Amino acid sequence: MVMHILILTGGDLDRVFARSYIQTQKFDKVIAADKGLFYAEQIGIRPDFILGDFDSCPRETVKKFEKENIMVLPREKDDTDTGIAMEQAVRMGADKVTVLGSTGTRLDHVLGNMGQLVYALKHGVEAYMVDSHNRIRAVDRPLCIDKNEQFGNYISLIPVGTVTGVTLHGFYYPLNDDTLLFHETWGISNELTEETGIVEMKTGTLLVVESKD
Amino acid sequence: MVMHILILTGGDLDRVFARSYIQTQKFDKVIAADKGLFYAEQIGIRPDFILGDFDSCPRETVKKFEKENIMVLPREKDDTDTGIAMEQAVRMGADKVTVLGSTGTRLDHVLGNMGQLVYALKHGVEAYMVDSHNRIRAVDRPLCIDKNEQFGNYISLIPVGTVTGVTLHGFYYPLNDDTLLFHETWGISNELTEETGIVEMKTGTLLVVESKD
Repeated sequence: MVMHILILTGGDLDRVFARSYIQTQKFDKVIAADKGLFYAEQIGIRPDFILGDFDSCPRETVKKFEKENIMVLPREKDDTDTGIAMEQAVRMGADKVTVLGSTGTRLDHVLGNMGQLVYALKHGVEAYMVDSHNRIRAVDRPLCIDKNEQFGNYISLIPVGTVTGVTLHGFYYPLNDDTLLFHETWGISNELTEETGIVEMKTGTLLVVESKD
Repeated sequence: MVMHILILTGGDLDRVFARSYIQTQKFDKVIAADKGLFYAEQIGIRPDFILGDFDSCPRETVKKFEKENIMVLPREKDDTDTGIAMEQAVRMGADKVTVLGSTGTRLDHVLGNMGQLVYALKHGVEAYMVDSHNRIRAVDRPLCIDKNEQFGNYISLIPVGTVTGVTLHGFYYPLNDDTLLFHETWGISNELTEETGIVEMKTGTLLVVESKD
């Protein structure tokens, strides 16, 4: 059995997209971080754990959920809310984590949340950031993407620093044992040409961004 | 004399912000990439160079600018529009580049554009991505940030891979010869406590994100 945890966090959230996306998934536990608690209320999800200083969440929402015997996690000063939520998900034995509300206008938080995908990967957890335009994961071993399960038409590979020995099968722009560097753009906006695309690498970590226009 | 080039590219652009921001700067040349040409028209800027396949730019805008003796750069298949624009800026001898329209919903492009900041840095060019919430640059040597020239209240440091020997002076959350890794969140949402903050590092490249809520 795969244990799938949903983290709702405090970036921007397209509620219509979120409502429809969560219906395509089965979540075993829900963690709401800060304004993510407000989103939980709005999309009609009951969290199992809440955390944050809730400076960006209405006071009545916090009061309502606090009464419901939900475990409130401490917010440590040297970590972000999403970081604490991801640590908790790992601690709870998640095999898979989906983070909603992890994108938005504050690009430092968006990058920090991408860092949490890598943190999860290093703990053996398959984690995704999803919004209405993007589904993002971090990988450090071969990955298969089936066309019929793809999120949008584009697949971009962005190295966290440097990734060596990248070979692609079934993609429009080929790579063959190539090194990807963050400041090059070879990995951006690729497309599948076959039913299954395979991404292989030798060393390093890739952010895989599937996107819709 | 500093040669400052403006790149207008095809992400999202807050026109009100863009109009007011360009009035605070002096640009020597303007490069418009794809939908950036449409933005140039909208905010009343005449580009010196245009490039792209213009699939996301109205045909009449392209025709209008083509007639005006503007140099049209080829769009190579294995690079992004912003990538070609940045190469051109470097080729033209830019000392400083500001990129507007480089953020938006497609996070692969946003990351690719951050990669272009690193590409510029490696060519000795000080480059910035700016939108109404963020000003982002890449640095690999000590950086001073004056409080009165800051963009917003928050400063986040995100390592491209790994950055060693990070020491901060004048910041709320201190770092002292620490290593920053992409999957940790120590660098997110710091704040200046003194008039000038100094960021030092030994090896690696940092993305410095100044942001407004």
